[in-house]
Amino acid sequence: MKLGLKRAGWLGVVALGALGAQKEERIPGFTRAGSRAQRELEAKLRSIPSPEMAERHLRFFTGEPHLAGSDRDREMAEYIRGQWKEYGLEEVRLLEYRVLLPYPEEVSVRLMEPYESELNLREEGYPEDQDSYDSSVGLPYNAYSASGQADAQVVYVNSGNPEDYQQLEQLGIDVRGKIALVRYSVPYSYRGFKALTAQQRSVAALLIYSDPADDGYGKGETYPRGPWGPESHIQRGGIPYDFLVPGDPLTPGWASVEGARRIPASEASSLPKILCAPLSYREARKILENLSGPVVPEGWQGGLPFTYHVGPGPARVRIRLRMDDQIRPIWVVEGRIRGSEEPDQWVIVGNHRDAWIYGAVDPSSGTASLMELARALGSLLRQGHRPRRTLILASWDAEEFTLTGSTEWGEQFADEVRAKAVAYLNVDSSTSGPNFEASAVPSLNDLIESVTREVPDPGTGRPLHQVWSKRTAGEGKAAPVENRLGSGSDYTVFLNFLGIPIADLSFEGPYGVYHSIYDSFHWMSRFGDPGFRYHSTLSVLWGMMALRVANASVLPLNFEAYARQVTVYLREVEKEAARKVDLRASLAQASRWLEASRALNRRVRAALDRDALPAPDRLRQLNQALAAVEQRLLDEKGIPGRPWYRHLIYAPRYTYAAEVLPGITEAVEKRDWEQAQEETLRVEEALRRAVEQVETASSFFAAQARRKQRLSLRER
Amino acid sequence: MKLGLKRAGWLGVVALGALGAQKEERIPGFTRAGSRAQRELEAKLRSIPSPEMAERHLRFFTGEPHLAGSDRDREMAEYIRGQWKEYGLEEVRLLEYRVLLPYPEEVSVRLMEPYESELNLREEGYPEDQDSYDSSVGLPYNAYSASGQADAQVVYVNSGNPEDYQQLEQLGIDVRGKIALVRYSVPYSYRGFKALTAQQRSVAALLIYSDPADDGYGKGETYPRGPWGPESHIQRGGIPYDFLVPGDPLTPGWASVEGARRIPASEASSLPKILCAPLSYREARKILENLSGPVVPEGWQGGLPFTYHVGPGPARVRIRLRMDDQIRPIWVVEGRIRGSEEPDQWVIVGNHRDAWIYGAVDPSSGTASLMELARALGSLLRQGHRPRRTLILASWDAEEFTLTGSTEWGEQFADEVRAKAVAYLNVDSSTSGPNFEASAVPSLNDLIESVTREVPDPGTGRPLHQVWSKRTAGEGKAAPVENRLGSGSDYTVFLNFLGIPIADLSFEGPYGVYHSIYDSFHWMSRFGDPGFRYHSTLSVLWGMMALRVANASVLPLNFEAYARQVTVYLREVEKEAARKVDLRASLAQASRWLEASRALNRRVRAALDRDALPAPDRLRQLNQALAAVEQRLLDEKGIPGRPWYRHLIYAPRYTYAAEVLPGITEAVEKRDWEQAQEETLRVEEALRRAVEQVETASSFFAAQARRKQRLSLRER
Repeated sequence: MKLGLKRAGWLGVVALGALGAQKEERIPGFTRAGSRAQRELEAKLRSIPSPEMAERHLRFFTGEPHLAGSDRDREMAEYIRGQWKEYGLEEVRLLEYRVLLPYPEEVSVRLMEPYESELNLREEGYPEDQDSYDSSVGLPYNAYSASGQADAQVVYVNSGNPEDYQQLEQLGIDVRGKIALVRYSVPYSYRGFKALTAQQRSVAALLIYSDPADDGYGKGETYPRGPWGPESHIQRGGIPYDFLVPGDPLTPGWASVEGARRIPASEASSLPKILCAPLSYREARKILENLSGPVVPEGWQGGLPFTYHVGPGPARVRIRLRMDDQIRPIWVVEGRIRGSEEPDQWVIVGNHRDAWIYGAVDPSSGTASLMELARALGSLLRQGHRPRRTLILASWDAEEFTLTGSTEWGEQFADEVRAKAVAYLNVDSSTSGPNFEASAVPSLNDLIESVTREVPDPGTGRPLHQVWSKRTAGEGKAAPVENRLGSGSDYTVFLNFLGIPIADLSFEGPYGVYHSIYDSFHWMSRFGDPGFRYHSTLSVLWGMMALRVANASVLPLNFEAYARQVTVYLREVEKEAARKVDLRASLAQASRWLEASRALNRRVRAALDRDALPAPDRLRQLNQALAAVEQRLLDEKGIPGRPWYRHLIYAPRYTYAAEVLPGITEAVEKRDWEQAQEETLRVEEALRRAVEQVETASSFFAAQARRKQRLSLRER
Repeated sequence: MKLGLKRAGWLGVVALGALGAQKEERIPGFTRAGSRAQRELEAKLRSIPSPEMAERHLRFFTGEPHLAGSDRDREMAEYIRGQWKEYGLEEVRLLEYRVLLPYPEEVSVRLMEPYESELNLREEGYPEDQDSYDSSVGLPYNAYSASGQADAQVVYVNSGNPEDYQQLEQLGIDVRGKIALVRYSVPYSYRGFKALTAQQRSVAALLIYSDPADDGYGKGETYPRGPWGPESHIQRGGIPYDFLVPGDPLTPGWASVEGARRIPASEASSLPKILCAPLSYREARKILENLSGPVVPEGWQGGLPFTYHVGPGPARVRIRLRMDDQIRPIWVVEGRIRGSEEPDQWVIVGNHRDAWIYGAVDPSSGTASLMELARALGSLLRQGHRPRRTLILASWDAEEFTLTGSTEWGEQFADEVRAKAVAYLNVDSSTSGPNFEASAVPSLNDLIESVTREVPDPGTGRPLHQVWSKRTAGEGKAAPVENRLGSGSDYTVFLNFLGIPIADLSFEGPYGVYHSIYDSFHWMSRFGDPGFRYHSTLSVLWGMMALRVANASVLPLNFEAYARQVTVYLREVEKEAARKVDLRASLAQASRWLEASRALNRRVRAALDRDALPAPDRLRQLNQALAAVEQRLLDEKGIPGRPWYRHLIYAPRYTYAAEVLPGITEAVEKRDWEQAQEETLRVEEALRRAVEQVETASSFFAAQARRKQRLSLRER
């Protein structure tokens, strides 16, 4: 026996000991008997996903570039369909949508002054990673850029956020008609927001590069020696304004199915009107070191070995972009396991399949984890374990463009999803390193924490919850689950358009090759997850969460945490508004919501503890009531200026970061107190609806309690 | 009339208006009549120092390298002597001390692996700055390095502080017998402390380089385009352990005068036993990019364009150092203006003259300001304005080695200085930019603030105090004068050995050429002070402060602020000690000190307001009592392990940063509660002595008050 194995075994024993204590506790939403059965089921589940199989899946999915709409993308969709059928999933099908999916025909960035030189948009190959030589890789581009040409002096604008342009203004630099060169990542903002910001300022064109201080040698060892971005890596990526409306830009709010109405591109609010292209730091350097003008303001200096200047010029650049702006097909793979008792209550799990190139991390790690989950669920079904509720698995497409596949699917089946879905559990990239991260609506915090208490961290063997909560506490977070939900992945349609409780899971680590050719199988096997144990662990976590929601007697949705979070958000905005907005009525509703949720929880716990559940029909209604609470927080008018985004508590900021209480927050930021007060009223009403919904859920116990009381009176 | 001039004239009017209001107020320490006379004197003083003359002085002092002990250093001392005599100063003399002043005979740093290359220790010349070509510039070195040879693999240790070595230990890196490569500046620590830290860890040799992130292109434009350090600049500098004892290492605590006893070098606690040499980043890069091993911990990455590794090796370096370890003469120039009424109360002003090369900022800007001050004081004397108290001007030498000249002078005249000096006002570098900085014992805060209220900021024309306090408030400081006093310049012997109230003044700005050949006249005239107005303004500020102390009826020492600061320090250490040390008695003494100081201040103000001062003999005793308060805070046993440092409130940390309550603080950091309690007792006693001294001062008023009362009774 090798030392390594011996040590792993020893860790396994420790883990078992540490985790053992949990095993006696009731699982949230389950009776004692139900908990025992569920844990037996989970023991079987845990034994299925394997690192070896995850590695095989990943090798397959990263074998060739598979951009959304490409032949390989379709082949992979068909492969998944085949595999899922083989695993035993039911009703497996391919859904096709036809959406605006531009590919590039010409991408040229040419330095014109102080010397002429065509910038090199190819990433260098490394012998360690044969995939890095693939000549079938297309031109790097920013999807949804306008087509056209610009020839102008360059200005460096740091991250390209509004405050950066403000600083330039203070320096007396006029950016109109200039080409703006900005860096991707510090402080992080979504590239589409950089594009909109530049467009609003009449910038002629935008170049976005990866500064080595942000994701290159300034962070650590670069590829292929380490996980960070080497000098020629290029971050591709879409720049649609999908913080306004996601999904196919030509079918905003409805599905791009056969015969669907399409609006003209000129009317599509999510389509940028600016030229935009990505650059590596090897090439951006040629521009940056030829900028004069003032030295950059504090915080703008990056990691290249010279003092940065803002310009304009003398560097002058000519940009030529030609996009084909084609309508292309994309494919969502869907499979399910029908629920034995509540087939019309759906637990949906999903991951996108399309990648910029190989996408070993983004998203193929998640796809590999999804395949292992599908295999495990199929196997359990064959062993006779059909869940109480229906499980739906989805392999989305074109997430990299505008979250397109999931959005179209959600729009297509909106009514059914609203009526049936009880939770959506998303995984985009499952693994780029060892650090577990989870974000979710607050009602799902307990579910996530309960599962992580029973699963060992692959690195240390200690309970994952312990490692995870210690790390997040060290990062200054109050709680391990992130409840401030922005956007950037496929849960958006479920949360913001449909009002379904969502969670999003991943393991993360140092990762500087995002959206570049180096996000490859070799990168993953060398740096991201050399033993593929995080891939398989994620399948286990994901599966346990899905099965706990699917099998629970009472849906594990805890609204106490939600009410508490909303109170925090209201207090924050109250402070920001310097008491110019009266939030007392909303705070009172949040407080009522907390009380109602506490009362509900007491009843749920009492019923589960004593195995005294309502009768099946009432239990079904109870669970439907619980699942619908999230929808009460939506308003069909949407938030101001963004009617597609209907959730009144959560929205993405234009940067894709979380924005809580978006309507009030944006009004307060504009100092529009009247609108802020109107938005507050909408939130107050939403919270009142949520209270009523929780009270409705409670009533099924109350009625039961009364009924029991009546029964016992009769018996006397 | 040019626009620039017109605008300056307009600003002048604004300034006059803004400053005018102050003119009616009583100057601290002066009667109303005295204030009027003092302001008339100051108006004359202000008209004398001129930017043009400051520029001429600076051009002269930066004409040639003038290392301490060199021929040019002596010529400059003699020149100053001549000038001061011409200006009308009295008793002008040269004092010679013979001290250990090593010059380098060989400094060689040779890369041996992975390829052989002698590192280039010459700084590149630039046509804009002809002085940068001077071939008479000696080898760059770290003064007091050991001599010898080392040949070993290199380890990168960030800043070379103890916590950096701890991090290496956690990475499993053994530094013993290796060559440590460290950067100078982040977080800043005195190079001598880096040497001691390396020596204690059995490092074979130390190389200290200037990382571009700290003082080069990472900060801004580099020389000759900007004020920051270009790739070949080298920071020279001493590495003695003068935080243990400053001054000639062979005469610790006594003066290196003719016939003085010298201890063997082997017994000199301030002499390093390690090899140490400085490097530019151009050369350090050749080593750093050939280090493998782990990637550096967070915060260690600098500004060179690759990922830093800690090593050890494969880079191997051979260092050869031969120092001549000669005893050399140094020269202090001293001149005075005898006081008319209190010739035995001294106000001392001083600046060092020696530079690593040209030292345009460090210290020649201060020397130029001192010359303008001397010229002004001489001129006032000729106009019949002899100060009440004696002014002593000093041009120190070998500050760059171990604060040597001032320390030897202070040790030589210790008894007389203790008996007579009422304040020491230091200026080292007077100007590297537009930002005023002052540090002082808290009792001098009022003096400094009062003067800055009446002098316009050269950049804006607004009162300097306003610009300065706004800037320091923006930096998060509670008050503009820095009261946490470390070391690093010539005030050390006065404060820490002799107990004289000290202040230190400068104008500062972006300055990346410290101790390099580029700290030159061209640098100053282009970046540091293009119009030389800050040089002349500093002469005015310095002169006004000196003359206010010299002419005040009651010395402008306010101990309320001191007592308040000490209370803050005691509270901090109490918190740090988590109440394991009982500081209540010390806090009670600080509180008594505050009350006694308040009572004293009331009497002083009442007397000055009513022009009802004690009789001359009693006033003399009162002022002597005030001047002696600072000495009550000293303890002749010194602080633990550092007997030369006698001040119980202030000492330099080993890093040269300020350490308040050094005895208690160090004991608390060692968790030695018993010693901390003993040190607390010493502080308590020192504070009690300070209280008594303040009460003694007060008593001269009390007696007067009683006497007046008696007189008035008799009259009835």
